[in-house]
Amino acid sequence: MTQTRTPTFFLEALHQEIQQTEYGHRPDELYDPIRYIMNIGGKRMRPLLTLMATYLFTDDWQKALKPAIAVEVFHNFTLMHDDIMDQAPLRRGQPTVHEKWNNNIAILSGDVMLVNAYQLLLNVDTPQIKQVLARFSRTAAEVCEGQQLDMNFETRWDVTEEQYIDMIRLKTSVLLGLALELGGLIADADSTATDLLYEAGVNIGLGFQLNDDLLDVYGDPAKFGKQVGGDIIANKKTFLLITALQLATGSVKEELTDWIGRETFDKGEKIEAVTAIYDQLGVRQLTEQRINDYYTRGFASFEQLAVDPVRKALLLEFTEQLIGRES
Amino acid sequence: MTQTRTPTFFLEALHQEIQQTEYGHRPDELYDPIRYIMNIGGKRMRPLLTLMATYLFTDDWQKALKPAIAVEVFHNFTLMHDDIMDQAPLRRGQPTVHEKWNNNIAILSGDVMLVNAYQLLLNVDTPQIKQVLARFSRTAAEVCEGQQLDMNFETRWDVTEEQYIDMIRLKTSVLLGLALELGGLIADADSTATDLLYEAGVNIGLGFQLNDDLLDVYGDPAKFGKQVGGDIIANKKTFLLITALQLATGSVKEELTDWIGRETFDKGEKIEAVTAIYDQLGVRQLTEQRINDYYTRGFASFEQLAVDPVRKALLLEFTEQLIGRES
Repeated sequence: MTQTRTPTFFLEALHQEIQQTEYGHRPDELYDPIRYIMNIGGKRMRPLLTLMATYLFTDDWQKALKPAIAVEVFHNFTLMHDDIMDQAPLRRGQPTVHEKWNNNIAILSGDVMLVNAYQLLLNVDTPQIKQVLARFSRTAAEVCEGQQLDMNFETRWDVTEEQYIDMIRLKTSVLLGLALELGGLIADADSTATDLLYEAGVNIGLGFQLNDDLLDVYGDPAKFGKQVGGDIIANKKTFLLITALQLATGSVKEELTDWIGRETFDKGEKIEAVTAIYDQLGVRQLTEQRINDYYTRGFASFEQLAVDPVRKALLLEFTEQLIGRES
Repeated sequence: MTQTRTPTFFLEALHQEIQQTEYGHRPDELYDPIRYIMNIGGKRMRPLLTLMATYLFTDDWQKALKPAIAVEVFHNFTLMHDDIMDQAPLRRGQPTVHEKWNNNIAILSGDVMLVNAYQLLLNVDTPQIKQVLARFSRTAAEVCEGQQLDMNFETRWDVTEEQYIDMIRLKTSVLLGLALELGGLIADADSTATDLLYEAGVNIGLGFQLNDDLLDVYGDPAKFGKQVGGDIIANKKTFLLITALQLATGSVKEELTDWIGRETFDKGEKIEAVTAIYDQLGVRQLTEQRINDYYTRGFASFEQLAVDPVRKALLLEFTEQLIGRES
C-alpha cells in the first residue's frame, strides 16, 4: 500500500538531510560560510521539485535526497557569488557571506560549494550518471551565462523583450527545469518524461520570474517581501520597463525617458509616475498575459506525464502553491 | 611496433587539443577570459603528466587528451580566482583577468571554468568514471582548502613547519598527484599503480614547491624568473623563514624578528641580512635535504611501477627536467 506524501513531509526529510550534510572540515573559514548560507532559510523549492519528481515514478524517493541537496547547494553557491558581484549587504534578511566574512572568503567558499554540489550529485545511483552530470554541468554553465548577461544589461538601453526572456531563462528558469528533470533521471524515467519535466520547470520558472517583476510594481505591500517600486527607483530593466520602452511613443516616451534620466527625485513621485505610464500602456495586462502563457505551457507539460494521478496531483498542488495560485 | 614518444610530441598534441577546445560561446565577456588565460602560456606540466601516465599502460594515450585538459582548465581556474584574492596585476607577464576585465568577470569566468573542467572530465571512457570524478572533486576541494590556509597564514606568526607542509601539499602538490593518478585511471590501471602515481606526484610536488622557496633566496638571478629575495622583502612565510624562526635563539632571533618588524628598510640590505641569518642557521642545507627527501620518495614510487621500462624512462626524464635536475 502506498502512503500519500505531502510537500511538508518532503520538506522535513530535506531539512533533516541538510542538517546531516557534511561539506568539509578545515579550515573553518572555508566551510563555516557554507553551513551559514545553507541554514539561513530559503523555500527549498528546487530540491523539493527534485524529490517530488522522483516520487512520480518510484516509492524510493529517498535516493533523490543527496542529488536534490546538490541542486540546493549549487543554487546557494550562485547566491554567494552573485551577492559579491552585486555588493548586496543582505540575503534573506541576514548579512551576506562577503559582509559577514570578506570577499575572498566568499569567492573561495563558493568555489568549494560548486565542488560540493558535484560530490553530492555523485550519489546518484543510475546507469545514466554521465547524462546526469552532463545535464547538470550544462545548466550550471547556463546559469553563469545568465548572470553575465544580466550584468551586461545594466549598462545597455537597447535590450529587447526577447533578449530579456533569454536572460531570465538562463539565469533562473533552467535550474528549475533541471531540478525536475533530475528527479526523473534518478528514477530512470524515459526521455519523454524527463523532457516534459524539464519543459515544465523552465516555463513555470519563466512565469515565476516575470511575476516577480510584476509584484515589484503591483504587489500587495503587506505580502510582498521587498519594497514595492524598488525596481522603478533603481531603473531596473524588468520585463515591465522593457515592454514600456518598446511601446511608448511621443510625449509618453519622453516622460518615461525623463524619469529614467533624473539623478534626483522623490521616490514616491517616481513610482507613481512610472506606474501611471505602465497603466496607460497596458503593461500590466501584457505582463499578466505572458505569465499565464508560461504557466499554461508548464502545466500542459505536467499534464502529458503518464504517471500515477495522485502523485502528479501532489506535484501540481505544490507548484500552484509556489506560484501563488489558489488551488 | 611501438613508436617511442617524446615530451615534445605530447606537448604538441596537447597544444593542438587546447586550440580546438570550446568552452562556450556567449556572452563573450564570460568566455573570452577563459580563452585568454588558457593561451597565455604555462608549462602544461599537469596535463603532460596525465598523458604520459596513460601512455605507461596503453598505446591509446589520446583518450587522455580531454581529461588532461580538464586538469589544466581546473589549474587555470584556481589561478584566475587566486589572482583576484591576491590582487595580482600580472600572470605569466600578462595582465591578469581581473585587471584586463574586472573582478566580477574574473569571478564568473572562473566559475564557468570549474564547470568546464567537469565537462571535459566527462569525456573519460572508463567504467571507473565515478571514481575519477570523486578523486577529482576531493582534490579540487583540497586545493581550495590549501588556498584558504595560505591566506590564514598571512596574519599568523606561529605557523609550524608541519602546518606549512600541509598547506603546500593541499594548495599545489595534490593536483600533481591527481594529474598522474588520473592518467592511470583513464588507462584502467590497477589501484596499486594509481596509488603509486598519486604518491609520486604529491612528493615531487612538495619538493618542487620547497625548491621554489629555496630559489627565491639562493637562485641564480639570470635563471630565476622572479626577483631573487622577493619573499624576504615581503616577509613571506616560506619553508626557509619558518625553519629559521624555529631554529633561531638569542640575538639571532632578535635580529630576524627586528628585520621582519621594520616598516622601512633598504631592500638589498634586508635580503643580505636575512640570507646571512639563514646561512648561519644552516637553513639552506636543511631545505635542500628536505627537497631531496621528497624527490627521492617520489622517484621511489615511480620505481615500483610495473610498466614498460622505455615508457617509464620517458616519464622519469620529463619529471627530472621539470624539477631542474640534470639527467
